[in-house]
Amino acid sequence: MTRIGIIGSAGRMGNALQAAVAAAGHEFAGGIDKGGDPLALAQSSDVLVDFSAPGALEFNLDAAIHTGVPIVIGTTGLEERHHWLIDSAAVSIPVLQTGNTSLGVTLLSHLVREAASRLGEDWDIEIVETHHRMKVDAPSGTALLLGEAAAKGRGVHLADEAVRGRDGITGARKAGTIGFAALRGGSVAGDHSVHFLADNERLTFSHLAENRGIFAKGAIRAAEWIIGKAPGRYTMPEVLGL
Amino acid sequence: MTRIGIIGSAGRMGNALQAAVAAAGHEFAGGIDKGGDPLALAQSSDVLVDFSAPGALEFNLDAAIHTGVPIVIGTTGLEERHHWLIDSAAVSIPVLQTGNTSLGVTLLSHLVREAASRLGEDWDIEIVETHHRMKVDAPSGTALLLGEAAAKGRGVHLADEAVRGRDGITGARKAGTIGFAALRGGSVAGDHSVHFLADNERLTFSHLAENRGIFAKGAIRAAEWIIGKAPGRYTMPEVLGL
Amino acid sequence: MTRIGIIGSAGRMGNALQAAVAAAGHEFAGGIDKGGDPLALAQSSDVLVDFSAPGALEFNLDAAIHTGVPIVIGTTGLEERHHWLIDSAAVSIPVLQTGNTSLGVTLLSHLVREAASRLGEDWDIEIVETHHRMKVDAPSGTALLLGEAAAKGRGVHLADEAVRGRDGITGARKAGTIGFAALRGGSVAGDHSVHFLADNERLTFSHLAENRGIFAKGAIRAAEWIIGKAPGRYTMPEVLGL
Amino acid sequence: MTRIGIIGSAGRMGNALQAAVAAAGHEFAGGIDKGGDPLALAQSSDVLVDFSAPGALEFNLDAAIHTGVPIVIGTTGLEERHHWLIDSAAVSIPVLQTGNTSLGVTLLSHLVREAASRLGEDWDIEIVETHHRMKVDAPSGTALLLGEAAAKGRGVHLADEAVRGRDGITGARKAGTIGFAALRGGSVAGDHSVHFLADNERLTFSHLAENRGIFAKGAIRAAEWIIGKAPGRYTMPEVLGL
Repeated sequence: MTRIGIIGSAGRMGNALQAAVAAAGHEFAGGIDKGGDPLALAQSSDVLVDFSAPGALEFNLDAAIHTGVPIVIGTTGLEERHHWLIDSAAVSIPVLQTGNTSLGVTLLSHLVREAASRLGEDWDIEIVETHHRMKVDAPSGTALLLGEAAAKGRGVHLADEAVRGRDGITGARKAGTIGFAALRGGSVAGDHSVHFLADNERLTFSHLAENRGIFAKGAIRAAEWIIGKAPGRYTMPEVLGL
Repeated sequence: MTRIGIIGSAGRMGNALQAAVAAAGHEFAGGIDKGGDPLALAQSSDVLVDFSAPGALEFNLDAAIHTGVPIVIGTTGLEERHHWLIDSAAVSIPVLQTGNTSLGVTLLSHLVREAASRLGEDWDIEIVETHHRMKVDAPSGTALLLGEAAAKGRGVHLADEAVRGRDGITGARKAGTIGFAALRGGSVAGDHSVHFLADNERLTFSHLAENRGIFAKGAIRAAEWIIGKAPGRYTMPEVLGL
Repeated sequence: MTRIGIIGSAGRMGNALQAAVAAAGHEFAGGIDKGGDPLALAQSSDVLVDFSAPGALEFNLDAAIHTGVPIVIGTTGLEERHHWLIDSAAVSIPVLQTGNTSLGVTLLSHLVREAASRLGEDWDIEIVETHHRMKVDAPSGTALLLGEAAAKGRGVHLADEAVRGRDGITGARKAGTIGFAALRGGSVAGDHSVHFLADNERLTFSHLAENRGIFAKGAIRAAEWIIGKAPGRYTMPEVLGL
Repeated sequence: MTRIGIIGSAGRMGNALQAAVAAAGHEFAGGIDKGGDPLALAQSSDVLVDFSAPGALEFNLDAAIHTGVPIVIGTTGLEERHHWLIDSAAVSIPVLQTGNTSLGVTLLSHLVREAASRLGEDWDIEIVETHHRMKVDAPSGTALLLGEAAAKGRGVHLADEAVRGRDGITGARKAGTIGFAALRGGSVAGDHSVHFLADNERLTFSHLAENRGIFAKGAIRAAEWIIGKAPGRYTMPEVLGL
């Protein structure tokens, strides 16, 4: 029986993770939140799942490295320095970090990359997402993940091409850019659409999450998969064999 | 036979207007563009249709006032001072100004207002639009028109509640606000959706234009309607009897 | 404290109803299912909420009539003879029967009726719905309710105009008809869209339910509302004052 | 300069094809319709493009075989015997037959196949399409083409799994089936969506055609591509190198 420790175990996502641990027949090794001790949790876990906050990442990674326990990171809002920390941890333990743990989004991302690689710049790319009214940042981590997939497919850097929060006198659309728009309201768990718009035709690839359960389910699947892997940095597509 | 003069007769919208004049069995009294003489055009027209530029509005209104010819204004990008000019002209001639001349959008706007008046602030309102890659401003005039309809339904001022171009650390959504998002790409003639998002359910009201013909058709219908009216400022819903 | 008795208290909808009774601060008077005794339940309830099966309707109505307890009926799959039973019961007790208890759908239905009354037959009406893979009938009761609203707006009878399950060599679309299409899959709680399609433009009015909670919440709201009303047959729009 | 002969040159699609021939800088070798002589047309063409009717297919293929001219077939409503005729013709000349000539649909079909091959039977597949009110058959050829792609991805035969025109008491959805639904109205050039619906999440892949121009453009691109190929039966994905 696999012992899974949850970092960020309170709140809606934490509850969903605990439910997914039980649903998959694993043992809930315990959960911590702000002020909790990740080292103690790691010592009693076979794998850690972290959906907490960027500020806690360094301590969580230290605990995982110290105990040699693999870790799945679903925390959003990471910045460049957090990715350095993850790269550094991945030298000694297996780490999987992702902006979205759902199976559907992972496949969507894969197909968006392929579509972007096949379609020329005469197909404009626009990404729109909707989330519940409590979400504090925009665009969502998943929208950025999809934007990265599109950029990779085109062989460009997202940072060079992203157009966010279009408003006012914008001028005509610049060829090759990737637009982002964010809607907020109600209790929406997460809708994402990637549009490819050409003269007289459009392709749209969408994912709709009915609730947070799919993210928890996918995170636990990633946790099962990462146990026993060699040290390194892994991704959700690898979990699915894409 | 009604003689219809077109201001802004070149370009894609101008061509669509000329086609709509012909389709409706009217006489094309002539068309002018930048540098053209609106007074001469007004003298040979029973009604003017203006889809040109904000900078030309004052001259166009002067020509209409001078000749007593009614005018339909579909020019977008108008600012407060343009509305003063229109109000002033409406003292002596009939003027209809609108952000969108389509029958479908006019009805949509009417229903959005009603929905907003029936649903409480626990239903968040978000408006998203998509237009072709050549469009230079955001949100579209139609999106703002729909936002005004929602605001009126709620009894608030759009200027106080509009949230545009959401991006970055936005914090949780503020109750009562009305969000706007803009997508740009391909040759999209104009898609608009108004979302009402509550806990566990959503209502969406959408309009999709396949091409510019509907705007031209509606503008010509408004032109037919306004002939013979008393001086004053009119709206599209009045054309449709809403 | 209002005592609410649930007929059809097991299963997913029954659980949602029990949760909604608690959430609204009412007393759960008890629940019955196949083989249960509606009379005993009615005797200890201030109002009954019935989401069971058409075959049980006669007994449930008898129990309500016998005890003078008002009843809210959300059971789907009713046929003409069930409506006769309801009409007959409504002579002596207040009865509210509806194909959909959600606030959003009730408003949607109201607006669809208005749109249909404003738009001519050159706007074709098509209704499409998606439900989870376990649903056994098509179209959904809500789709039919929306179709009735559209037909009323047009002043026609739905039975004369409905086109269901279009397949094969259908010929061109007959003006004035109202089309229905049904998708089934996954765990979809219920999506409905009413399209009005004209030359070159379309209007779409949609409702999306994230889960069954909204139907339970609306049913309990209807139950609160119907207590103390005069005998008669009531509808959801009346609950909302539409 | 390539000489392109159009079979089915009248009507809306015929006009679009003629415009696409001109736009691509080719020579319009002539066009025929019911009663026209395909042999004479083939003799003055480098390639034939046939968007006529199933009943004319045999004569058209005979003309192509007799003259050794390659042919692109976009005619819809083909039955098994028509495919035998095409297979037989492909022994001596290059033939490309497709239910949809648009670049976007061709890529969509490719990605639907891949998605279907990656997702298990716990993802239900439903295909819905909308076309203008004059269309006489359902589902559309493109919907069937997308269904074939999904079936191939799953390693099943579409004929065994297709569920069309769902209506009435259908019972619960049978695992592994592929559902089809058709909407008709207005002037819609062609919308197609393929839904993959699982527990708590959905993926949707859509294509929207603003007008017939994209089909004509793709057909002419296929005509350019097929000239000089060896005898055989070709497909749109090959034109695009997929």
